[in-house]
Amino acid sequence: MVTKKMQFGAQYREIEVGKIVHLAKEVPMKLDSGAGIQDFPVAYQTYGTLKEDKSNVVLICHGLTADQYAIGTHPVTQKLGWWEEMVGPGKPIDTDQYFVIATNVIGGCMGSFGPKETNPATGKPYNLEFPVITIHDMVRAQALLLDYLKIPSLYSVIGGSMGGMQALSWALQFPERVRSVIAMAAAARHTAQNIAFHEIGRQAIMADPEWCEGNYLYERTYPSKGLAVARMAAHVTYLSESKLAQKFGRNLQNKQAISFGFDADFQVESYLRHQGQAFVDRFDPNAYLYITRAMDYFDLTQGQPGKNDAERLSHAFKRTPARFCIISFSSDWLFPTSESRMIVHALNSVAASVSFVEIDTDKGHDAFLLDEPELRDTVRGFLRGG
Amino acid sequence: MVTKKMQFGAQYREIEVGKIVHLAKEVPMKLDSGAGIQDFPVAYQTYGTLKEDKSNVVLICHGLTADQYAIGTHPVTQKLGWWEEMVGPGKPIDTDQYFVIATNVIGGCMGSFGPKETNPATGKPYNLEFPVITIHDMVRAQALLLDYLKIPSLYSVIGGSMGGMQALSWALQFPERVRSVIAMAAAARHTAQNIAFHEIGRQAIMADPEWCEGNYLYERTYPSKGLAVARMAAHVTYLSESKLAQKFGRNLQNKQAISFGFDADFQVESYLRHQGQAFVDRFDPNAYLYITRAMDYFDLTQGQPGKNDAERLSHAFKRTPARFCIISFSSDWLFPTSESRMIVHALNSVAASVSFVEIDTDKGHDAFLLDEPELRDTVRGFLRGG
Repeated sequence: MVTKKMQFGAQYREIEVGKIVHLAKEVPMKLDSGAGIQDFPVAYQTYGTLKEDKSNVVLICHGLTADQYAIGTHPVTQKLGWWEEMVGPGKPIDTDQYFVIATNVIGGCMGSFGPKETNPATGKPYNLEFPVITIHDMVRAQALLLDYLKIPSLYSVIGGSMGGMQALSWALQFPERVRSVIAMAAAARHTAQNIAFHEIGRQAIMADPEWCEGNYLYERTYPSKGLAVARMAAHVTYLSESKLAQKFGRNLQNKQAISFGFDADFQVESYLRHQGQAFVDRFDPNAYLYITRAMDYFDLTQGQPGKNDAERLSHAFKRTPARFCIISFSSDWLFPTSESRMIVHALNSVAASVSFVEIDTDKGHDAFLLDEPELRDTVRGFLRGG
Repeated sequence: MVTKKMQFGAQYREIEVGKIVHLAKEVPMKLDSGAGIQDFPVAYQTYGTLKEDKSNVVLICHGLTADQYAIGTHPVTQKLGWWEEMVGPGKPIDTDQYFVIATNVIGGCMGSFGPKETNPATGKPYNLEFPVITIHDMVRAQALLLDYLKIPSLYSVIGGSMGGMQALSWALQFPERVRSVIAMAAAARHTAQNIAFHEIGRQAIMADPEWCEGNYLYERTYPSKGLAVARMAAHVTYLSESKLAQKFGRNLQNKQAISFGFDADFQVESYLRHQGQAFVDRFDPNAYLYITRAMDYFDLTQGQPGKNDAERLSHAFKRTPARFCIISFSSDWLFPTSESRMIVHALNSVAASVSFVEIDTDKGHDAFLLDEPELRDTVRGFLRGG
């Protein structure tokens, strides 16, 4: 186990980042931007046991702000991992059967190559000198990790939200290495509304004078307020209106009557402020800029021939022999079912094998992280199907 | 015509505010908070001619960031007024027939009593010493204006969004003075999701160090960045996802390819940044705090007897003899049709006269401000009906 000195918010401490490997040691990995990155770290965790024939590898891909700690105690938050519902012995992604790999994406902030890593050329954090990366780049780094681990192919690649984007990218970039794909609460491209919400978050961070043009770690400042606002704006998009109404409604926070002031009178205000603050203590502001940008840039129709997006998307999936399971959640308004349907139609039009499930839930976009029996049954069943 | 020295963003200039009257000169007007306000200004505009029997008065109530300039050239923005689509000679709210009054709400920033007005006790702007006001308070100030104008009752009170809240409040507080009510894109109470979006905006403003605890006018700073982020976060909620997709999609802004950076690559980013900046040049940050808070506090069920919200809302409407026209827009996810239906059900249960129209449109919450033929026809027809 490796530890790294890291800063989140006001805290600067030694944090365990699990396993770390340096990839592309000899030949740089080319990024979509044209830049090359060499000898860069990727942090990862593995769960379960690799079969001798290496036929049981499942790669799970995390969403925007998660990391390699899918299960177990998270070294920064001390909370359980982000996919405890899904991964573990006897769970749908059963670690008694599968060898599960989870990496921290490049651009991230839990040990993989990201903007707060030290630039050996300057001895300072990269900050905004870090290259802008894409979802495809994240996936290419994961493929290099598989090479390092001498794993030729994946039994399945699975992810939700940005993780679902990575899973789809795997099928396109490495069709010969992927037997099946499960993409949930995902889309084939980021919509205008999604880009808009990300831009609000980025502007909130960059508006904070303590961001210092990205150099806060060097300047010994920290854009905590801007990052908290960014998280609040994002968090509200992860929940459904009905869930917010049911969970909080207009309930007051520890008071009998409104205060006629700007304190958190309502529980939903108090909850959001807490979400913002908790995020500052676990996520790097520049990493937030880079990862949201990678999602904005995601568009599987790009560079494909065709008269319209439907044709271009179909063409994108033409080469892949993988089986697909596409899952959406009825109350997810950020990655609505219509976006999943677009993927399913494209897969159908190239005669790919695809299962599609829309799960009826009021949990919104975050449903893929939560206790959803139908989701667990769907994933378990699909994985058993080979 | 009166002018006032006002600051918006970096601009400090003499701005025409139309007609201004000081109300509650002798007896203070009591606010819901318990505070009293005395001798306070309300800025207003009138359009059309008052009939001798005063039977043709229509009060129009503005949304969060609008003001008394419903039509004509706005003195700050030099653009046309917010309700050019609806108000004017031959328009649905026909100034050849009706005497139309539009006030700037108290708490606002276009001449009415608001946080940037000078506190005579200190010679400085009120800033956060301004009392927190409610939608009901705004309406009581409008009623005092009618008293001053010697207008006993309204032919109709009409508004969208926060303006619709005011129209509903009129029917409850002054049932004997209101013959009909048109409330569009409105609700009987602000939902948890709505409160959440407002809280994001307020936190963005208050996170800006140039807000200076509300004292920016005195400190000669200005929280432009925070206010711009607040506006961006709000603006995206006023549009439907489908409209954003249709208007912008993933189109790039004046470039052939993505830049692999954090400039505005996408048109939707450029558009949002422009919306944020334009807002800074026309709206007061503290007024934004106060008016969003007034909307958060709006809940017609409050203080009413009943076993549930439906019963309480019905009770709230018990005394009103007015005719109602409730209008929602199919793609408005901020004030969805379900919220309008709740009002309609409550009105039906007390046998009030109510028309309900859900207009099928992709224009989202802002539809009430835009070119919507069915909306114009509905308003015209309802008003003609007496």
